[in-house]
Amino acid sequence: MTKDEFYMGKALEEAKTAYAVGEIPIGAVIIYQKKAIARAYNLRESLPCATAHAELLAIEKACRALGRWRLSGCTLYVTCEPCPMCAGAIVNSRLDRVVYGCADPKAGAVRSLFQLADSPLLNHRASITAGVRADECAALLKDFFRKKRKKSDSGQP
Amino acid sequence: MTKDEFYMGKALEEAKTAYAVGEIPIGAVIIYQKKAIARAYNLRESLPCATAHAELLAIEKACRALGRWRLSGCTLYVTCEPCPMCAGAIVNSRLDRVVYGCADPKAGAVRSLFQLADSPLLNHRASITAGVRADECAALLKDFFRKKRKKSDSGQP
Repeated sequence: MTKDEFYMGKALEEAKTAYAVGEIPIGAVIIYQKKAIARAYNLRESLPCATAHAELLAIEKACRALGRWRLSGCTLYVTCEPCPMCAGAIVNSRLDRVVYGCADPKAGAVRSLFQLADSPLLNHRASITAGVRADECAALLKDFFRKKRKKSDSGQP
Repeated sequence: MTKDEFYMGKALEEAKTAYAVGEIPIGAVIIYQKKAIARAYNLRESLPCATAHAELLAIEKACRALGRWRLSGCTLYVTCEPCPMCAGAIVNSRLDRVVYGCADPKAGAVRSLFQLADSPLLNHRASITAGVRADECAALLKDFFRKKRKKSDSGQP
């Protein structure tokens, strides 16, 4: 197992917690000097808050942990490709590197629909690695939405 | 004075508070049924937190105020064109409308560099009005950066 696969495992643990509480299962961790300084999972429905994506919550926790808004020296691991908001937050926080699991063809803003996290137009470019443990990350999401559809088909709340 | 100019005045008040505490002077308010349900100003340095832009903080406050993550029925007023993170948050929160003051040629993601807030690629498009009280909004920013440069030229902290 590579270092990236190992840390993606930590993000997957967060995603599984999101799944367990009925949230879209996406998890994130931020690594600084080989330590996980922030872990988070999607909390949009629970809070409820439109900005409570795993990546944004992890970035906010990492800023608190380091006492600075610049997350240089840090790598974000997230199970699913970041949306425009989260890709923008990656740039704003000057994260060195982003590693994600599965692609998001509907809202992905790192590679799929937009390339915001390393855009030559913005004042910071993160290094990107895509597709780490992508099958596991995608399976969790597929399973979540399949069960959700089944529930709504059967009239369950 | 139009309704938009009036509400932009409230965002300008927030921007002036940011100025007074040494933050880049950008302010935002969110209006729902003619009431300001959220007001915020940039707090990046004070917290410190990379995501603490006026718009994001206002969206989070509005979600708390309404008890839901969908801000349909709401309009965001912000003194400066939103960055990619904030434009993404506008889409994620399903805001009906965004009214901004001055353009941001370096990071603007509503009209200048990207057009994220009403992109046909994403699952929500906000209605956009640009340039409301733009001169006042821009003057505040110019003045802030001019004073900052003067201070650093003179060796003051």
